[in-house]
Amino acid sequence: MHPDPSQLHTIEDWRQAQRDGAAPRALIEARLARLDRESPAAAWILRLPAAAVAERLDALEQAAAGLTVAERLARWPLFGLPFAVKDNLDVAGWPTTAACTALREPALATARAVQALLDAGAVLLGKTNLDQFATGLVGTRSPWGAPASVLAADRISGGSSSGSAVLVGAGLLPFALGTDTAGSGRVPAGFNQIVGLKPTPGRVSNAGMLPACRTLDCVSIFALTVEDAAELLACIEGPDPGDAYSDFRPGLPSWPGPLRLGVPRLPDLDGELGYDTAWAAACARAEALGATLVPLDFEPLHATARLLYDGPWVAERQAAVGALLDAAPEVFDPTVAAVIGRARGQTAADAFKGLYALRGRRARLAGLWTEVDALMVPTAPTHPRFDAVAADPIGVNSRLGTYTNYVNLLGWCALALPAARTPVGLPFGVTFLAAGGADAALARWGQAWQAATALPPGRLAEPPASPPPPRWPASEPMLTLAVVG
Amino acid sequence: MHPDPSQLHTIEDWRQAQRDGAAPRALIEARLARLDRESPAAAWILRLPAAAVAERLDALEQAAAGLTVAERLARWPLFGLPFAVKDNLDVAGWPTTAACTALREPALATARAVQALLDAGAVLLGKTNLDQFATGLVGTRSPWGAPASVLAADRISGGSSSGSAVLVGAGLLPFALGTDTAGSGRVPAGFNQIVGLKPTPGRVSNAGMLPACRTLDCVSIFALTVEDAAELLACIEGPDPGDAYSDFRPGLPSWPGPLRLGVPRLPDLDGELGYDTAWAAACARAEALGATLVPLDFEPLHATARLLYDGPWVAERQAAVGALLDAAPEVFDPTVAAVIGRARGQTAADAFKGLYALRGRRARLAGLWTEVDALMVPTAPTHPRFDAVAADPIGVNSRLGTYTNYVNLLGWCALALPAARTPVGLPFGVTFLAAGGADAALARWGQAWQAATALPPGRLAEPPASPPPPRWPASEPMLTLAVVG
Repeated sequence: MHPDPSQLHTIEDWRQAQRDGAAPRALIEARLARLDRESPAAAWILRLPAAAVAERLDALEQAAAGLTVAERLARWPLFGLPFAVKDNLDVAGWPTTAACTALREPALATARAVQALLDAGAVLLGKTNLDQFATGLVGTRSPWGAPASVLAADRISGGSSSGSAVLVGAGLLPFALGTDTAGSGRVPAGFNQIVGLKPTPGRVSNAGMLPACRTLDCVSIFALTVEDAAELLACIEGPDPGDAYSDFRPGLPSWPGPLRLGVPRLPDLDGELGYDTAWAAACARAEALGATLVPLDFEPLHATARLLYDGPWVAERQAAVGALLDAAPEVFDPTVAAVIGRARGQTAADAFKGLYALRGRRARLAGLWTEVDALMVPTAPTHPRFDAVAADPIGVNSRLGTYTNYVNLLGWCALALPAARTPVGLPFGVTFLAAGGADAALARWGQAWQAATALPPGRLAEPPASPPPPRWPASEPMLTLAVVG
Repeated sequence: MHPDPSQLHTIEDWRQAQRDGAAPRALIEARLARLDRESPAAAWILRLPAAAVAERLDALEQAAAGLTVAERLARWPLFGLPFAVKDNLDVAGWPTTAACTALREPALATARAVQALLDAGAVLLGKTNLDQFATGLVGTRSPWGAPASVLAADRISGGSSSGSAVLVGAGLLPFALGTDTAGSGRVPAGFNQIVGLKPTPGRVSNAGMLPACRTLDCVSIFALTVEDAAELLACIEGPDPGDAYSDFRPGLPSWPGPLRLGVPRLPDLDGELGYDTAWAAACARAEALGATLVPLDFEPLHATARLLYDGPWVAERQAAVGALLDAAPEVFDPTVAAVIGRARGQTAADAFKGLYALRGRRARLAGLWTEVDALMVPTAPTHPRFDAVAADPIGVNSRLGTYTNYVNLLGWCALALPAARTPVGLPFGVTFLAAGGADAALARWGQAWQAATALPPGRLAEPPASPPPPRWPASEPMLTLAVVG
């Protein structure tokens, strides 16, 4: 059999093509040619040279010599699958620019999450565009240009993980890695109608990520289906003694009983885009799936989010790149420079006061998870045009974080999913949020949501088949406790 | 029976006297008279007026009217027992000076740990001296004077919980509360040859404590026996939704198998005081108790400690009292002002860099608890005379923290215990350290240590009897896990 290489979307599509007789090299070469023709504008910062990809394929073929297709896929479940990573994740031998032209030194080692995908047989094709230093939710703050949503040429892709999201949304890659500090793995998923999985902070190693805010950063996953995102999380998750912020604590496999789903009592939504009706439909769908909606006052969450930008966390960005900003402000995007520059004048005492305030918020919000199992929020309250961002780069960006900014501050996990196409043809997404460790349970719920939604992701024509993946994110075993002492 | 009120030392002594027919009021009044005569110099900042104590006794008698002694002790296990608290813990209606004469406003509420003791029937007699704002390990930085060790009039009491320690060491109170940020609950225990229990950070609520470093502060316990300290911890421990840093996670009840006890390979000890031989004897005693000594390189711990004073945590002190320091520097002890003043110029980015460094140290040290169950260290490497502190107030203070400074940064618990009287008659103490949550296990080991050491605590003539207390700090149940899903 010779499957049409352009019709390979999900991880399972790629595996099935191999089982059907296609050579991984041929599939990759066909995809490289398509990427040459069809890559969305400004998606890439670095395409790996064809010779480097060919060398990688040589190595894979050599390693798998003598194995059947089934054997090699059992050993390397992502054998021959193409992917890309956001260019704030290190890949040995290539620069990690973080969308700053001044950063040109090749990385010495590969980020741990990227390495986990390579170890599973995946084939890295390049590094993707981002809001510079992962500072932004718009995708417009990069000298490599500003990608557009794959579903609306006049609207932003969202950021900061812009390039990874549009490549997956365009159906050109089955998956890509992003990062997420304040929403960078979720907003672009929403604006390109794909799956954006932001794990619990510490669940996936951040080793080899150029930090934005080290206490908040997460590696994130873009994929076309929940099953693929879940399988990829299972591949990259786990404790890492080399990352001081590693904190792998799997939680429940699923929620017992009908889902209690908190929703904002007064959602902030752009009615002109049709988000109001899309949100109402999302609420109805959740109820049809058996969830009980619990309207909540979101002000405590918004107040937590305000800590992020009014508080000291911007000083983490300064800790990461402040020396460069002082030495060479001209290599910075002006908006990014302005945002990071706010940290000047913040004292160490201010930092601790901010940490105390967050600790207080976390303590007060701990009871939330006794009232509800998860939250459903709009992924973003609106989907701006490029001109709106240009007119008010900080204000528009800020509004986009309405439902994302507080999540890592609170140590939660998140799953951004397609919810609807609006009457004007725009993607509308929702994000499910849950307590730290509940990643596996969130993915289980996401499967049900995806099946009921039945939307084609990104630019795909049909929702892809999504059989159960071979691996699922870890959860704690259900225990019967026998007290013996 | 009419027991000699001066011979009541431990909690159980006080209870037994009541069972033997003594009236709590008579016992307290006798003790008040003794405190008038015998309180060590500079121990108190505030003695509660006799009328306030009498009112408290009235209330207790009224509450217990009609109950037998056994019934009232079952209901209030500390019924009628006198105690004092360090004057950085709030008691409603009285100022919390933290040894600063400018702080005179009466507190509106009582600190949660203090309230727990009151709720168990204890009778507060007053508030004790400390190094101002709990900044120091010497006990000399207070306008209320500098207490001496109860065992050496020319040597310091240790601090910052100086007053509480000398009152217990003098045999005048069965227990008192201190606080411990960098050793303030351990060094004075060592210098007065009593028990100093510093719980795991978050195990006891800090609500109502004037903060030193909010991310590190702990309430601590001074007592004459391990059993009393353990019973008191059981009384005051537990989660507190009102304290954002509350983090109650009980660990093992005891260590299985022979104790693996890490000790410093090259301990820093003052040979002139006889600490070398006292330490060798302590090591021999631990081995005689069945422990396996594991000599360790302590440099990673000392490096962690250096973060405390070279790093940003001093800015937490600034966050607590910096506004007062700016407005009225003259109300500060000059050394305390100099220490806290170091925070000036520290930026928020510096604070985060310090937090990253600590997180890295914590991650690298996590493996320590696979090699050993606990550590044994000298409580302090020397015991300075007052003149030595006056000559070099910061340098001497700094050396005293050699084995205490890193403990709260690492989230560990500690139990400071008498170890020996040196040939020159000075107290020598050791501190056992264990992972966060291991408080109950540490106390179990401490019981064995105390029995083998058989030293009279403080100024007592004999080691007191120490029957098993009615309560013990919480530990997790031993579980047999049956995986069912």
